[in-house]
Amino acid sequence: MKLHFSQADLAEGVNIVLKAVPSKTTMSILECILIDATSGEIRLTANDMELGIETVVKGTIEEHGKVALDAKIFSDIVRKLPNSIVTIDSDDRDLTVITCEKAKFDIPGRNAEEFAALPMIDKNDHISLSQFSLKEVIRQTIFSIAPNENNKLMTGELFEIRNGILKVVSLDGHRIAIRNLELKESCSDRKVVVPGKTLNEISKILSGEMDDQVLIYFDYNYLLFEFGRTTVLSRLIDGEYFRIDQMLSSDYDTKVILNRQAFISSIDRATLLVRENDKMPVILDIRDEVMDLQINTALGSMDEETAIVKTGKDIVIGFNPKFLLDALRVIDDEEVSLYFINAKAPCFIRDDDGKYIYLILPVNIR
Amino acid sequence: MKLHFSQADLAEGVNIVLKAVPSKTTMSILECILIDATSGEIRLTANDMELGIETVVKGTIEEHGKVALDAKIFSDIVRKLPNSIVTIDSDDRDLTVITCEKAKFDIPGRNAEEFAALPMIDKNDHISLSQFSLKEVIRQTIFSIAPNENNKLMTGELFEIRNGILKVVSLDGHRIAIRNLELKESCSDRKVVVPGKTLNEISKILSGEMDDQVLIYFDYNYLLFEFGRTTVLSRLIDGEYFRIDQMLSSDYDTKVILNRQAFISSIDRATLLVRENDKMPVILDIRDEVMDLQINTALGSMDEETAIVKTGKDIVIGFNPKFLLDALRVIDDEEVSLYFINAKAPCFIRDDDGKYIYLILPVNIR
Repeated sequence: MKLHFSQADLAEGVNIVLKAVPSKTTMSILECILIDATSGEIRLTANDMELGIETVVKGTIEEHGKVALDAKIFSDIVRKLPNSIVTIDSDDRDLTVITCEKAKFDIPGRNAEEFAALPMIDKNDHISLSQFSLKEVIRQTIFSIAPNENNKLMTGELFEIRNGILKVVSLDGHRIAIRNLELKESCSDRKVVVPGKTLNEISKILSGEMDDQVLIYFDYNYLLFEFGRTTVLSRLIDGEYFRIDQMLSSDYDTKVILNRQAFISSIDRATLLVRENDKMPVILDIRDEVMDLQINTALGSMDEETAIVKTGKDIVIGFNPKFLLDALRVIDDEEVSLYFINAKAPCFIRDDDGKYIYLILPVNIR
Repeated sequence: MKLHFSQADLAEGVNIVLKAVPSKTTMSILECILIDATSGEIRLTANDMELGIETVVKGTIEEHGKVALDAKIFSDIVRKLPNSIVTIDSDDRDLTVITCEKAKFDIPGRNAEEFAALPMIDKNDHISLSQFSLKEVIRQTIFSIAPNENNKLMTGELFEIRNGILKVVSLDGHRIAIRNLELKESCSDRKVVVPGKTLNEISKILSGEMDDQVLIYFDYNYLLFEFGRTTVLSRLIDGEYFRIDQMLSSDYDTKVILNRQAFISSIDRATLLVRENDKMPVILDIRDEVMDLQINTALGSMDEETAIVKTGKDIVIGFNPKFLLDALRVIDDEEVSLYFINAKAPCFIRDDDGKYIYLILPVNIR
C-alpha cells in the first residue's frame, strides 16, 4: 500500500477516529487505526467494539492495500510532521514507512485482517438534525447521567421520538434533565438508550454549525451518525428506560422567577466554602421579592440576597449546589422559572414552551 | 480592623503573595495571608520561612488593625466576588466579615501575632535589572537545576556578580546553563546561590516589562527583590557552588552551525518514538553539509537530515533529546553554533558574544 496525503487532511482524519480508540483494552488490535485503501477511497477506522468511527480522508492512492497502525504512535507522528505531503508506504509484512520532507519514520504495522470491521447497518429509518442542535442537546443533558456503572441504563441517555419530537433524557437518581427538539422530517416513533461515552465523543467531533447536518439511523442494536465524511456507529444500551412521565408534575405551591446569571454567581460564591467531598447544601430562603441564599460549613458561612419575583407560599429548601449549577449553566434564557411544592419535593426548572425541564431533588436540611 | 478595597486591587495583591503560601506545612499559621493595616498603608504578607512576599494594596483604612486569614479560602472568596467595593471587617476575636454588594462571608481569622514576620534586611548593596531581563534569565536557566534535593546546591542557581557582569548558572550533573548579563550600575562582587523555588515563583509575578525595574539587595543569608509595590525575600542556599570554570573549554574539533527551529522540530519528531521513562538517545551523525538525526526504539525508528555548515572533523554522537530541546528552546538566535571534541566529551552551544553557554554531556551510544 502506498498513499499520499496533505499533512493537514491526514491529521484531521486521524484526530476524528482517535476518539474511538480505547484507552485500556485487552485486545491490542483495537489500539490501532485501520487505514483501508483497497477501494477507490482512503478510509480510517477505529473501533472499541462499543463505539466505531470511520472517516474518509482526501489523498492519492499510488498502490492499493490496507494496514493497521498503533493509534498513539501514528497520531503523534502525523501531528508533528511539517505541513507538507505525507507518504505512507506499507510492505507485505506490514512494515510501514512514513515520510514527509526529510523526515522518515519506520514503524511496525499490524495485519489489517485482524482488525474488527464495523458491522453493516440497515439504513432505513433516520432523522436529521443540524450539528449545532445535536451538540447542544448533548451538552444540555450529559451532565446528569450517572458516572458509574451500577445501573447501566443511567450511564446512557434516552433518545425518544414521538410525534415528530425528539426527547432527550438523562437521570442519575438525584435529578433529571429533559430536552425536547422539534424534528423537521417525520420519522416513525422510536425509543433507544445511547451510551454517554458515545455522546461525549461525538460531541467533540461535531462541527457545531447550524448549516451542517447529521443523519441518525436506527438499527436494532445500533445507532449510526453520519455527517460530513464521517460515520459514527454506537452500540445501544439494552433494557427499558425509566418511566419519567410519572415523576413529572406541573403542580406547584411556589413559583420564583430570577436572573439566571446572578443566581449562578451567588451559588458559585457559596461553594467556595465547601471543601471537596464535603456535601454541604445551599439553603434557599424564599420570601416575597427576595431570596436569601445561605451556606454554613466548617470553613465559615456566607449569605447573599437576590431579587426575585415570587408567587405562592414562602419556602425554605436545601440543594446540592452542584446540581443547581449544572442545570442553570446549560440554560440560555436570561431569566429562569423555578417551581416548588415543599421542602421535600423536587424542584423543577422549566420554560413555558416545553423545551426543557430540569428536575432536582432537594436535600434534607433539618 | 475595617478596610475597603476595589475587588480588582485586592485580587491582584492576594494573587501576588499567594505564591509564598506553602502547599504543605506543619505550621498552620503559614497557610494564612497576613493583612496588616496598623500603619498608614495596607500590607499583605505570606511567608513559608524560605520565601516571603509582601505587597502593598491600595485601599481605605476605616479602622486600623491586623488579622491572618486562611490563604486558600480568602483568595477563593476574593477572586469570585463581583468587581465592586470589598469590605473586610475583623473583630477582637479575629472573626472576619467580608462583604461585597449583597454577598456576605463570615470566616474565622487567626491572631496576627502568631504570624512569622519577615526578617529585616540590610539594604546597602544592590543591583538593578529590568523585570524583563530577570524574568528572561530565569526562564533561560531554570530548567537545568536538579529536581530533587540529593544535592541542595543543585536545586538553586548561582548569581555571581563580577566586574559589572551578572552571571547566572544552573547545573544538574548532566548539563550546565550559563547566562551573562551586563549590569548598568556598578556593585561589589558577590556570589550567592538562590533557591530554584524562589526563582520559579518570582518569575510568575514579574511583569516582564522592559521599563519596570527590579532592585536586588544582598544580605548575608537573604536576597531581597523589590519591584513595584512588592517585596520578595528569599533565604539563600548555604555552601560553596561548583567550580564551573574548570568544566568549560573553548577548544573544539568540530563546529556546526544550523537553523535552531529546524533542529528543534527534528528532535521533537524523534522523541515521538520515546515512551515515558525510556531513555533513548538521539544520534547525530555529522558530516559535511548535512547532519543525520536518528533514533531507534522499540516503537520504530526515525531519521531526518538537516542542512548544516560544518568545520572540522566528522562526528557521531548521542544525546538525551530533552537536554538538547531544553537549551535550544530558550535561545533566541535563528542560528546556533554547536562545538564538539569527541563522542565522550561535552557539547557546547554558545554564542560569539559570551551571552550564553549551554554544556550538555553526551550519552554513550556504543
